[in-house]
Amino acid sequence: MIKDVNKIVLAYSGGLDTSVILKWLQQEYNCEVVTFTADLGQKEEIEPARAKATSAGVKEIFIEDLREEFVRDYVFPMFRANAIYEGEYLLGTSIARPLIAKRLVEIAHQTGSNTISHGATGKGNDQVRFELGAYAINPDIKVIAPWREWDLLSREKLLKFAESNNIPVEMKHKQGGSPYSMDANLLHISYEGRHLEDPKSAPEESMWRWTSSPQDAPDEAEEITIGYDMGDPVSLDGKMLPPHEILEKLNELGGKHGIGRLDLVENRYVGMKARGCYETPGGSILLKAHRAIESLTLDREVAHLKDELMPRYASIIYNGYWWSPERLAMQALIDHTQLNVKGWVKLSFYKGNITVLGRDSDTSLFDPEIATFEDDDGAFDHKDAAGFIKLNALRLRIANKRNNS
Amino acid sequence: MIKDVNKIVLAYSGGLDTSVILKWLQQEYNCEVVTFTADLGQKEEIEPARAKATSAGVKEIFIEDLREEFVRDYVFPMFRANAIYEGEYLLGTSIARPLIAKRLVEIAHQTGSNTISHGATGKGNDQVRFELGAYAINPDIKVIAPWREWDLLSREKLLKFAESNNIPVEMKHKQGGSPYSMDANLLHISYEGRHLEDPKSAPEESMWRWTSSPQDAPDEAEEITIGYDMGDPVSLDGKMLPPHEILEKLNELGGKHGIGRLDLVENRYVGMKARGCYETPGGSILLKAHRAIESLTLDREVAHLKDELMPRYASIIYNGYWWSPERLAMQALIDHTQLNVKGWVKLSFYKGNITVLGRDSDTSLFDPEIATFEDDDGAFDHKDAAGFIKLNALRLRIANKRNNS
Amino acid sequence: MIKDVNKIVLAYSGGLDTSVILKWLQQEYNCEVVTFTADLGQKEEIEPARAKATSAGVKEIFIEDLREEFVRDYVFPMFRANAIYEGEYLLGTSIARPLIAKRLVEIAHQTGSNTISHGATGKGNDQVRFELGAYAINPDIKVIAPWREWDLLSREKLLKFAESNNIPVEMKHKQGGSPYSMDANLLHISYEGRHLEDPKSAPEESMWRWTSSPQDAPDEAEEITIGYDMGDPVSLDGKMLPPHEILEKLNELGGKHGIGRLDLVENRYVGMKARGCYETPGGSILLKAHRAIESLTLDREVAHLKDELMPRYASIIYNGYWWSPERLAMQALIDHTQLNVKGWVKLSFYKGNITVLGRDSDTSLFDPEIATFEDDDGAFDHKDAAGFIKLNALRLRIANKRNNS
Amino acid sequence: MIKDVNKIVLAYSGGLDTSVILKWLQQEYNCEVVTFTADLGQKEEIEPARAKATSAGVKEIFIEDLREEFVRDYVFPMFRANAIYEGEYLLGTSIARPLIAKRLVEIAHQTGSNTISHGATGKGNDQVRFELGAYAINPDIKVIAPWREWDLLSREKLLKFAESNNIPVEMKHKQGGSPYSMDANLLHISYEGRHLEDPKSAPEESMWRWTSSPQDAPDEAEEITIGYDMGDPVSLDGKMLPPHEILEKLNELGGKHGIGRLDLVENRYVGMKARGCYETPGGSILLKAHRAIESLTLDREVAHLKDELMPRYASIIYNGYWWSPERLAMQALIDHTQLNVKGWVKLSFYKGNITVLGRDSDTSLFDPEIATFEDDDGAFDHKDAAGFIKLNALRLRIANKRNNS
Repeated sequence: MIKDVNKIVLAYSGGLDTSVILKWLQQEYNCEVVTFTADLGQKEEIEPARAKATSAGVKEIFIEDLREEFVRDYVFPMFRANAIYEGEYLLGTSIARPLIAKRLVEIAHQTGSNTISHGATGKGNDQVRFELGAYAINPDIKVIAPWREWDLLSREKLLKFAESNNIPVEMKHKQGGSPYSMDANLLHISYEGRHLEDPKSAPEESMWRWTSSPQDAPDEAEEITIGYDMGDPVSLDGKMLPPHEILEKLNELGGKHGIGRLDLVENRYVGMKARGCYETPGGSILLKAHRAIESLTLDREVAHLKDELMPRYASIIYNGYWWSPERLAMQALIDHTQLNVKGWVKLSFYKGNITVLGRDSDTSLFDPEIATFEDDDGAFDHKDAAGFIKLNALRLRIANKRNNS
Repeated sequence: MIKDVNKIVLAYSGGLDTSVILKWLQQEYNCEVVTFTADLGQKEEIEPARAKATSAGVKEIFIEDLREEFVRDYVFPMFRANAIYEGEYLLGTSIARPLIAKRLVEIAHQTGSNTISHGATGKGNDQVRFELGAYAINPDIKVIAPWREWDLLSREKLLKFAESNNIPVEMKHKQGGSPYSMDANLLHISYEGRHLEDPKSAPEESMWRWTSSPQDAPDEAEEITIGYDMGDPVSLDGKMLPPHEILEKLNELGGKHGIGRLDLVENRYVGMKARGCYETPGGSILLKAHRAIESLTLDREVAHLKDELMPRYASIIYNGYWWSPERLAMQALIDHTQLNVKGWVKLSFYKGNITVLGRDSDTSLFDPEIATFEDDDGAFDHKDAAGFIKLNALRLRIANKRNNS
Repeated sequence: MIKDVNKIVLAYSGGLDTSVILKWLQQEYNCEVVTFTADLGQKEEIEPARAKATSAGVKEIFIEDLREEFVRDYVFPMFRANAIYEGEYLLGTSIARPLIAKRLVEIAHQTGSNTISHGATGKGNDQVRFELGAYAINPDIKVIAPWREWDLLSREKLLKFAESNNIPVEMKHKQGGSPYSMDANLLHISYEGRHLEDPKSAPEESMWRWTSSPQDAPDEAEEITIGYDMGDPVSLDGKMLPPHEILEKLNELGGKHGIGRLDLVENRYVGMKARGCYETPGGSILLKAHRAIESLTLDREVAHLKDELMPRYASIIYNGYWWSPERLAMQALIDHTQLNVKGWVKLSFYKGNITVLGRDSDTSLFDPEIATFEDDDGAFDHKDAAGFIKLNALRLRIANKRNNS
Repeated sequence: MIKDVNKIVLAYSGGLDTSVILKWLQQEYNCEVVTFTADLGQKEEIEPARAKATSAGVKEIFIEDLREEFVRDYVFPMFRANAIYEGEYLLGTSIARPLIAKRLVEIAHQTGSNTISHGATGKGNDQVRFELGAYAINPDIKVIAPWREWDLLSREKLLKFAESNNIPVEMKHKQGGSPYSMDANLLHISYEGRHLEDPKSAPEESMWRWTSSPQDAPDEAEEITIGYDMGDPVSLDGKMLPPHEILEKLNELGGKHGIGRLDLVENRYVGMKARGCYETPGGSILLKAHRAIESLTLDREVAHLKDELMPRYASIIYNGYWWSPERLAMQALIDHTQLNVKGWVKLSFYKGNITVLGRDSDTSLFDPEIATFEDDDGAFDHKDAAGFIKLNALRLRIANKRNNS
């Protein structure tokens, strides 16, 4: 039990788990609960949460469309870094948590609450992300994580609690519940747990919700041109669009063409390996496109520096340190490198494949006169290479003489 | 002109360029030239080089099948690191050069030559790789790089020299030559130059030699299981195979299924950006498979350490420092991490897609009892997470108080 | 309360705190306690611990001289990395904990105990180091950390417990206790807490125990020559000595000459900043000497790679991950670099100063013919530098043109 | 010979070498030479250069006091990073070159010159630093490096050229010249070459020019308090001072107390090891003081990130890439971390020793309530540590079970 709780702001989806939590908080803590429900692009109606919260006696209900803020201030800054966790994961869940944490704390301030609560389990990364985010923004906030406190750890107990408290339970839950734990936002949908717990086996095809399989995707390729400015995508086929609409459109296109499925085993911050499946259609496209526009416009050493820092930056986000000073310091470096990252990338999508068809930029560092295999009229003096090699070889030659003497 | 050359070992393919170089060396340096031709899996006959060299008056001719050594001692150690240059390039050309450099120097020693020569141009990375490799192994070796010395810089002059020296010129060269500069070995085939010099445009479909397009690939997926031991692939579908046969088989499979095409702009060590296209079917599969088996068997912090070091390791190879002490030191770390990287990965190939269908290992660190979303009988105490989060948040909370005070 | 404890191995110094813990464990857990007391060079008699333990009813008493093992297998490997935490701290406490953890677990195995215990507080790094070490070696070991469990958190309660349990209390404790919390081993002595808690103020001169102040140190400098082999010191003034004798001798010399005092604020792994003072006379000398011998014998890029990895390696040790796979992997790299680190370094000590007077090595990479400012007879061709600079400048020149176009 | 030179701006000290270069340029290139002489705090009169240049027929003479700009825009930004090359060298020469390069190029622009020239040798780092700097700022600038072009490589030839061209030669040059090659600016004075070429031997005491030996330094310690704001020193003993006056004053104090001597073997960018001796009295003080103020005010992870990036940042400067995009990107990160680095550090100087006597800051992250060893009234819950350790140990425990199963 957390002490001296006066009012609680709960991250509330309206689903079974957070409905049980809502009731449990009201009972256990005997105080008002404020609900906060956000549209981050999870493709579920959020308005139904209002009626459910109202009927549970909630007086202060926050329902917000955060899609643009999410993509502009969280997803796009992260993509400037080409962030990938452990070589594959595009951090779709990780990047949404800091925004929710921030809003929870802000709503707590606004409603005079000293406590927030969330439905993340005690074994996962999300509890860490919510709570590190909240503490970083308000060090005195109190946090209730029911899954670490209560005794409703089995599904049977949870359902029993729901029934005895008149919480509506959908048929699927009575029939054993979803075979996966899912999370979705504009960047991705994730699947974990239950039917996926054995990494020896592939998931059922029926699991995937956002993307066609490559097999079922259209037989015709489709092309699009993404415009970039300051490292962020700003237009599709020449039409300027706000950040979330760009990502929505690319999700739709990528999903149609079977792009962005991932099945992996990852290392959680809390110490164990876990298996997850992800669909990140738009994000997979943006990673490829951003690398392509950077390949023209970034200096070599800057690009390499970014690549060397990237795994750490990705871990920082994965582990929940979005609001940390080290993330902000790295972001300062990353954003500084993006000033000239502009131009366009033309891509083709076909049955799971993303192919770069071309890229160009007014700020390109590609110099055809220097790069040509043909005669370059002396723009590059071949003889310089001899000296370059000689001096770079010097330490190797000296070492060889030492080692063989 | 390099001074005091007594005899020259030339990396000789038997093609037009190195045939011209052979003749030019004989004329300019007025000494014996030894030819060295290696089968690295470039899928071209190497024996014809013998007749050509003989007819050019060469007395010492070395023709060697290095495929197994190449894959075992160069490709596989590199893949233990998941090495990728600039986020995309699998280093297919880079990794072959150190082996050629080593053999050139060894043959020089064996034949009493004090000089080696190669056909790499003065603008590219390969001259650096050949020469750094050679100097690292024999600091007193002399190197002749004709492209940095001679005046045959235009194709016309080259052809004219060939004709006036009775060097047979194939029809394609007379008709303008290949539209691309190509290099191939068991790991990849690369295309650069000429028709590819404009990064705005995609290459012609006819360029690609090793892979079907995803469009033309079979409509049926195909599966294979790769066995791993100590970080290296050792078997396909349960059959133990030598390294080069594994890569050959995966090239064949990947090529058939449209896997491993790449079109990118990269940063050369000699200072300019260049556009290259690559086909790396087997290598693309091995990268995916190796990450999958590591995902089960590598400790988290070791995996992250490897990921952070990888870009530097890849640059070291790209830049030609295979034989450097820093590569050897990093390899010691990498190899140390691979002792328990064993097990199997099952993959499916379909129209350009590589999908992991499952992975397992006797040395797996995936612990289903800990990872489960279900009740775990206390294997993991949820309450530990509270303390974990609290201490990790402490510095953030203190900083917030400082910043807001 | 830890459950199902059958017998406990306690890290026992014989001092007040661990004597209270011994009694408390016997009472609370109602089981046998085994004591383990190690000589790590803390300059205190360890034999008195035997009588104290016996009189407390302990039947299995382990008293061990681990000085040589400590220096050879812990201190020296760490010094191969030039490890410094946060720019200043030489990790004297951190490096001793893994050895104690290992012995605790081994003795538990030997005595049929399933539990270990230590006297580290709940706010410090040492609890983490002991316990991570123990868990890494025996994942099923149980750990009792009395300072996190009991209610004897104030000194008054502790003294009262001691008195009511007939534990002898020295006069100094009755008079308010030591003004500092101290820890010592062959590498250093540390001071923390109480009189040191205000980082605005310098410690009293009387605090320092191992070193003269520079002011009181001799007016005459003293010289010594340290011999190195494979990265480790092996001799003093030409006399081969075992590791711990080398460190003892250097502690004596350094202490006499006022070397190795440190007063700093450091970041603990558990989240807060803390102020510590340290005396590391021999270690300070060894750091300087090791860098000097490496400066001759290490390749540039290897040296730079080590320098870039060092802060992480130091954090790993500071945080208690000595027995982790990431430390072992890094050690593989570090040890690989030390094969040629041999030769001698001559040093002078004077009132806090360590001055390198000379260094030489049979495996030196310093090449006087190349390095000379005088005419070098062509060993180095000045003109190579022009090409070297030109190619290294190429990307900067292209970028400038882009930025200004 | 560089082609199409219209007018040359020469970095001119007025000493023998650059006087010979001035004459040689006039003769060889048969064009006007503009001289540029800067006061960077080298403690030599720069006005005499005017008369010498005039008498050599120079019409455009630039003599500038750049001390404040040098310290403010070059030295201090570098010290924000705690930059040290190879563990010891404070980069005193390296950091001055970019400013000189910038002024050379600017003066070339102003005087209509298309070429610059400098007196750095073909074996050293300075040629690289001058030229990379110049090319980065003006990619079309031409550079003449006489030491790479001419045949005056021996001192005899140089003196002979001077005599036959009526260049005044001081007695010391006739008598064999200085036993060292020296370079000085406000940050340091360096000694290389000749009498120092054998790293086995210590330099003569008479070499050192800026500092007393510790032996000769005063018997009384002296104290000073340095005030910091945004990572830079801004005051001494409470008195606000401009950057260069702070460094001048600290040089004076440090020099008096025998602080900042260094004798080392370093790795040059051009490939060989070289021995150098340095006096950096003020810089050594500033490094210690900056670390002390950062120890209070920087977040742990930010501090560690800086420490890990520092060696690369230092190499970038050492190698001459001050004006590169990678240095600018790293500086963005570094500067971002310094916003709260303010407060004061009190230091004592005594016979070569710098001792921190105290430090404090309004933006301190040191929290005495949390840090205390005494009862903290629950500010820190000791039990949190148990969970923290348990989760951090989880992967180690799982791995142990794997390794032993």
